[in-house]
Order: sequence, then C-alpha cells, then structure tokens
Amino acid sequence: MSLTIKVHIAAHFNLNLRTAKQTKLTDYNVKIRPKPIYHSNQLIAFQPKMSAAVKSASSAIKSSLIEPDGGVLVDLVVPESERGLRTTEAESMPKVKLTKIDLEWVHVVSEGWASPLRGFMRENEYLQSLHFNCLRMKDGSIVNMSLPIVLAIDDETKERIGSTTNVALLGPTGDLIGILRSIEIYKHNKEERIARTWGTTAAGLPYVEEVITPAGNWLVGGDLEVLKPIKYNDGLDHYRLSPQQLRKEFDNRQADAIFAFQLRNPIHNGHALLMNDTRRRLLEMGYKNPILLLHPLGGFTKADDVPLDVRMEQHSKVLEDGVLDPETTIVSIFPSPMHYAGPTEVQWHAKARINAGANFYIVGRDPAGMGHPTEKRDLYDPDHGKKVLSMALGLEKLNILPFRVAAYDTVEKKMAFFDPSRAKDFLFISGTKMRTFARSGENPPDGFMCPGGWKVLVQYYESLQAEEATQQPAILTS
Amino acid sequence: MSLTIKVHIAAHFNLNLRTAKQTKLTDYNVKIRPKPIYHSNQLIAFQPKMSAAVKSASSAIKSSLIEPDGGVLVDLVVPESERGLRTTEAESMPKVKLTKIDLEWVHVVSEGWASPLRGFMRENEYLQSLHFNCLRMKDGSIVNMSLPIVLAIDDETKERIGSTTNVALLGPTGDLIGILRSIEIYKHNKEERIARTWGTTAAGLPYVEEVITPAGNWLVGGDLEVLKPIKYNDGLDHYRLSPQQLRKEFDNRQADAIFAFQLRNPIHNGHALLMNDTRRRLLEMGYKNPILLLHPLGGFTKADDVPLDVRMEQHSKVLEDGVLDPETTIVSIFPSPMHYAGPTEVQWHAKARINAGANFYIVGRDPAGMGHPTEKRDLYDPDHGKKVLSMALGLEKLNILPFRVAAYDTVEKKMAFFDPSRAKDFLFISGTKMRTFARSGENPPDGFMCPGGWKVLVQYYESLQAEEATQQPAILTS
Repeated sequence: MSLTIKVHIAAHFNLNLRTAKQTKLTDYNVKIRPKPIYHSNQLIAFQPKMSAAVKSASSAIKSSLIEPDGGVLVDLVVPESERGLRTTEAESMPKVKLTKIDLEWVHVVSEGWASPLRGFMRENEYLQSLHFNCLRMKDGSIVNMSLPIVLAIDDETKERIGSTTNVALLGPTGDLIGILRSIEIYKHNKEERIARTWGTTAAGLPYVEEVITPAGNWLVGGDLEVLKPIKYNDGLDHYRLSPQQLRKEFDNRQADAIFAFQLRNPIHNGHALLMNDTRRRLLEMGYKNPILLLHPLGGFTKADDVPLDVRMEQHSKVLEDGVLDPETTIVSIFPSPMHYAGPTEVQWHAKARINAGANFYIVGRDPAGMGHPTEKRDLYDPDHGKKVLSMALGLEKLNILPFRVAAYDTVEKKMAFFDPSRAKDFLFISGTKMRTFARSGENPPDGFMCPGGWKVLVQYYESLQAEEATQQPAILTS
Repeated sequence: MSLTIKVHIAAHFNLNLRTAKQTKLTDYNVKIRPKPIYHSNQLIAFQPKMSAAVKSASSAIKSSLIEPDGGVLVDLVVPESERGLRTTEAESMPKVKLTKIDLEWVHVVSEGWASPLRGFMRENEYLQSLHFNCLRMKDGSIVNMSLPIVLAIDDETKERIGSTTNVALLGPTGDLIGILRSIEIYKHNKEERIARTWGTTAAGLPYVEEVITPAGNWLVGGDLEVLKPIKYNDGLDHYRLSPQQLRKEFDNRQADAIFAFQLRNPIHNGHALLMNDTRRRLLEMGYKNPILLLHPLGGFTKADDVPLDVRMEQHSKVLEDGVLDPETTIVSIFPSPMHYAGPTEVQWHAKARINAGANFYIVGRDPAGMGHPTEKRDLYDPDHGKKVLSMALGLEKLNILPFRVAAYDTVEKKMAFFDPSRAKDFLFISGTKMRTFARSGENPPDGFMCPGGWKVLVQYYESLQAEEATQQPAILTS
C-alpha cells in the first residue's frame, strides 16, 4: 500500500519571525497566568501557578515554556565527537539484546520524554513507580512516573553479565545502540508488576502478552547512553520530533499555551470539535497564541488498532480538509509504546507531554482504556482516567482539561457535545463501530469524519482484506 | 481456656510526676533533633527535621510528640451530651449493617488512627489510595494512606438508601453504632482493588476471602460519627488505648522518642534483641527517655495465626520474665484488621503509629507478608517492605528503622543478629516452625523464647488439639 504523507510541521519551521504587531512574548506571558481551568480535583486548593515566563525571567532561561520534570530536559545521545570512542568502549562490554519495544523505550528515555529518568529503572525507581506512580528527587520534589520503564533480561544474559557494571545494548538486528552504565540487576516479579500496573492479571492484556510474558525473570537498570538518535527509516522519522525540537518549535511560534492531544485512533470530528473548543476557551482566557500539539502515539499498539502510517495519512487529510487549522497545530509522533493501562497510563501520557513543553493536557473518556480481556465490560471505569489524572501526584503544574463526551447529533447532523436532555438524538460511534463501517465500505453518518480522512481508512481496510484474501489459502493448505 | 492477662501499662499511669532530677522536656527536646537513623532511602536528601518540641513551642501546643497526619488527631466519637439526640436522628435513617471487620474499621477511623481521614473513603480518596498510596490535603500537603478504608454494600442496601445523604450504621448484632453523613456511593471493582492492593489476584488471600469476595458491589463513603467508643468486652479492652490515650501516656512519661513495634506473632528473643538494641541506639543518639510502643495488631488475622488473647498473655510473660523492660515499654492493642498486603500494608502500619505519637518505626524482614497463596514462594520480596517504607510518600516525618535479621546462634545459644561470615552457625526459626514446635510440645532451642512465654503457646496448642479431638467425631458423623 502506498501512502502519501504530508508534513504539516515543515511549513511552519520558518514562522519564527516576530512582527511588530505581535505582543512581545514576555509581556503577555507575565500578564496571563496559566489557570487550572476545568481542574476537577476538589482536594487541591486553588493555587495560582507561577507562569513559566515569570520563572524564566528570574532564572534567565530563554524559553517561556513549562519546565521539564526535574528542571532539565534529559538528553542521552552521545555527542558526535565522542561517538567513536564510546563505540569502541561498548564493543568490549557484555551485550544485551533489545526487542523492538525495548528499543522504543530507549528512544523515549534518550530524548527526555521521561525526564528526569536517565535510563532504565533501578529497583528503587521501579518500586516507587509501582507503589506511588511517582519518583522522589534528591531535593525532595516529586515527579510523576506511573509506568515502570524497565529492561528485562533472561537468566542466560544475567549470567553472561556477571558482575560487570556496564553493558552494551544491541538493537533487534544486532547493531550497537548504546550503553547502560552502573547497572543493577533485580528480580522481575511479573505477576506483581502486571497487577499493580493494570489492576488486573487477566490473560489477554496486549502489552503483557507481547512484552512481559515472553520476557526474562530479571530487570536491569542503569544510566543510558545512546550512540546516535534512534531512527526507524519508515518514512515517518521527520514526524518524530524530540521534546527538545518541539520546545524549539513552540518557542519559534511564540506559543503562550500548548495543549496536547494524545491519540492512537483516526481523528473524527468529535475529536476536532474538542480540540477547536479548547483553543477557543484558551483564547477566551486571554492566551494570544495557543498551539495544539496533535500527538499520535507511535510505538507498540495492539493488533486491531489502525497502524501508525495509516493514521498519519489520515491526520494529514484532516488538516488538509481544514477540520483542524495547520497554522495553530503541530503534528508529531510520540514514540512511546502503548500499555492500555487506563488511569495508570494516562499519567505517563500527560507527564511526557510536560517534557515536550505542553502546559495543557486534554483528557477524555476512558483514556488508554480498552475492553476487559476476559469479561464483557470496560477494563476501567471510563471516568477514572480523568479523575486519577486530575489528582495525580507530580502533575500539579500541568493544567488538566477533562472534556465532555462528543457524539453524533442526528438532528444537527454533526459531532457535538453530548446533551443528556435529548440523549435519544445522539449516536455513539465507538472505535469498533467505526472500524466496522470502514471495513464494510459503509459510510458513517454525514459529518462524522472529513471525507478525505475517511477515504484513507476505507483504503486501509480494503488493502487489509485483499491481503487477508491472498493469505487465506496459504493458511488452509498449511 | 482461661487466660490471665497482665496489664503492664496500668502500673505506669501514675508515672506522670516530674522530678527535679529530670531534665525539662522542652530543654532536651530542643537540643536533640530526631535524626533519620538507618534511613536507607538514598533518594531523600538529608533534611534536618524540626523537632516536635520546637514546633510546639511556636504553636503553643503542649505535647512535644510528632504531629498527627493532617495536624489534628481525628476523634469521631460523639460527645456524651449529644448522644441522645444523634441516636434519635440515626434511628430515622436508612440502615447499613456492618460486618465484624467493618466494625474494626469504624473503630480504627473513629479514634483517629487514619487521621486525617474522617470516615469511609469516597471515590476520590479511594482512587488516590489505590494509585498513589497517599491522599493530598486541601493545603497541598500529602499524607500516606496505602490501604483503601472502604465500606461495601450490596445492591439491596444501595436501593434501600436511594438518594438519602445520611445513613445509620448497625453493628453485627444490630445495635446502633454511628452515622455516615454526606455519603457517596460508587462501584466496587473488586478485581482492581485486589490487584492494586496486593499485587496479585491469586485465590487464597485471607482478607480477600474473608472480606472482599463476599462483599457487595458498591462502596459507600462519607463522614463518620460514632455514638460511643467501640468496645469488644473480651477482657482486653483495657489494652485498647486510642491514639489520644497513648499520646497522653507518652506525655506523662516525658518520652522524647517513641519507637513502635508492630507484631501479630508471639515475641521471641530475636524480637526482644531488636527492640532492646533500638533503645540502646536511641540512647546513644542522645535521647534521654525512649519509650517502646509494643503494639500487637488486634483486628482480623488469618486462621493459623495465634489468637489475640493468647498473644497478649504471651506478651505479658515476656515482660514479666524481664526480656523487655516494663518501665520503658507500653503494651497496647492496635485495632486494625490485617490485610497481609506486604509493602502496601506496612505503610499503613507505620502511618497509624504516627497518629499514636510514634516518631520511630521498626521494620523487619517481609513485614505484613505471607507465603504466596498458590505458588511455593514468599508473596513479596522480603526486602521490599523496608525499601518501600523508606521511600514512602507522606511518611517523611517518621524515622524508619530497618533492622538486620535475627536468628538463633547455635554457638552462643541465643538469638543474635545474623552474621553472614558464619552463616552455618545460625538457625532460622520461622513462624511455621515455631508453631510446629509448640504444637508437638517439643521445646525450641534454649534461648529462643523466655520459658513463661513459651508455656503460653504450648498450652494454647494443647487446648486447640483437645478441641479438635472433641470436634473430630462430630465432623465424621455429620
């Protein structure tokens, strides 16, 4: 299947001119304090948050963006000048082979999405993550860290490492990726990790089946160094902006509010309504230049999710069709793998976006949720994600924007915020329903999704069916 | 079986005289700052903690003890003058019947062990407890709260309550216990609660089988009022000192350090070694009057644990035999039920003791742990309890004292701290092993436990066997 990927961000890299008409960044940022609008946590007393600009003015940091967790954005890519030396050094170390998903985590950690984490977790960090969804820093401050970011090894690898303190990391194809220094090896209690992360140990959790069950019985933590930036060479690398690159771009655009939207599904007009509505509200609040970070997840997803390349093409069409405004939107890929761990994972999704510069985070119904793998119900209470996120420790500086459910209004013939007073007029179109439509070639109700975006989906499912048709006989005869 | 319970605390209730020889409390408390000795958390930078006495001097609170969580010790017992009025009011409310263990929690909460919690958890508190093992207060501060303290109701009760905002609580025998006000009813997702609390959903967890599995599918949270102090009339109520009573007693004794020892097993000389060693260290640190809070758990325990009355008699003998010094020890019952939830539960055990005035907490191997219910291994890594406790959010003001393992030194013929350099000389006598000895009437090695204490155990198991013998035929013929 051939895909045309449109790069929307490229057009804006030159937009860093500051015209006289624009209020100076520091001026309006000092005036307007980010307020925790819609923040639903009744336990948190309202505390006006010092604007990033005020902070930066006093500490002489140029950027006016929200501070990364821990104060400094982690960057673990070895400077080019030292690459040769480190490569030679790494070659003499015991080797640990990474899976595809391990490598996605190396990518995530090396670019600072998990700042202040500087490698795979050692046991102290792992235990804090499991029990408190947080890490305590040396200065006593707390950062959110809800998912254990760990590297599993098997008995044989553990034995091979022995008492060595540094190991080299090899990619799935055997290429040298980086170094893990001052390592600590500890037990991988899979049952406990799964129970505390997912709130269930039922069979059929996608990340568990793909990653944890086949993994070794040991975890190795340590300080990571990556020999060069992680690339996938899949035609989408230009979408994979690091937190540092995103921050630079937000600065260039003189954004005074960044609102992040995490997604792993095609964008329908309900999503768009919400993103546009958020922008409207931010403008009403006095922000002059709110920028949307449209941030599809690019790592591991479950088999029946729409693949990344198709989603990126679909997102392109949504911007092309004008459903979202390219002038105020940055489309970029968030390189993390997906856990489908609901209220636990949504914290990670939000936290990582702080590191990319977002100070507003949109959260909807059942974030990072899925159906229970063995029971006929949602795995998580659909409201728990936004509740937990609003109360999450270590995310206090982030403004959480829980939103009302959007559904198809059969009277107005468009996606609209659900109005319980005329519930019968609304049609809920789930991801499963949407995929069924696309698979059967049936059109969804008018106004559900822009035609260009819908076409991408239909083509994808057609190609999938064609592929299945050619594979079917092979399976039957084998 | 008839038991003689010796009340050791009674002898000290009159010890609140302050002689000229004693340094004045405020004097030595200002000089000596509680230091986090043995605190193993490398992530926490050393921060000198303001002594309780310094705080009290400035805030004019008389007690020099550690502040209860949230600043004020919760006391939910209705004043006697209002009891009649509230009883009449409660009689008109929908009724919720409590189980024996629900009532233990009512006891715990009403006396302020869970301060600042003022009732059974509403959903916001429940979610914070499950995800963060903490509650955030209105002023932004964080208190530890690792176990969900919740009240389950079934569909029928929920329906009967309807939209009423206040309900009356009835004890297991139907007597009016108290009121739950401004209630909130929410779903009881048992699987998620179990997985996040225990880190497993394996069948056979004692608290789950006894409490959660038979419970209803709803939880009801609200503000608790108790009509009168909870009593059990089992001959042990005089041991059940509330946090307020304990604080008063510590003040009376002019204690400048309180070190708490949680236990649910008979005391052997290894425990005693450890408690005496802790006292020695505290004296070395400059404390003048460290008091041991010997604090056996009095609520629900699993079937094969030694019952509370037997343990209390055993503890009495240990003090009588002089293994622990009655002059510097307070024996009291901690009314909480036992979860056997390891690293999660040990936080609760420690947090509750802050509220009772303890500023030092002793933690050993595998606290609140047990064997995995379906696999041949410990349910928790035996070191995780002390690690998690040392890093726990909201417990920063408590000094955690992790201790080395004590075992029977076959050369010295006494319980001693395990010396790995001569490991073969040491004999580990587990709880199971100890019970096997006692059951078979066999004596443990000399010096394992004081003879008086051991005799109590042997008598208990003899009586148990006699009871079993009389019951056996009845079972066979039924």
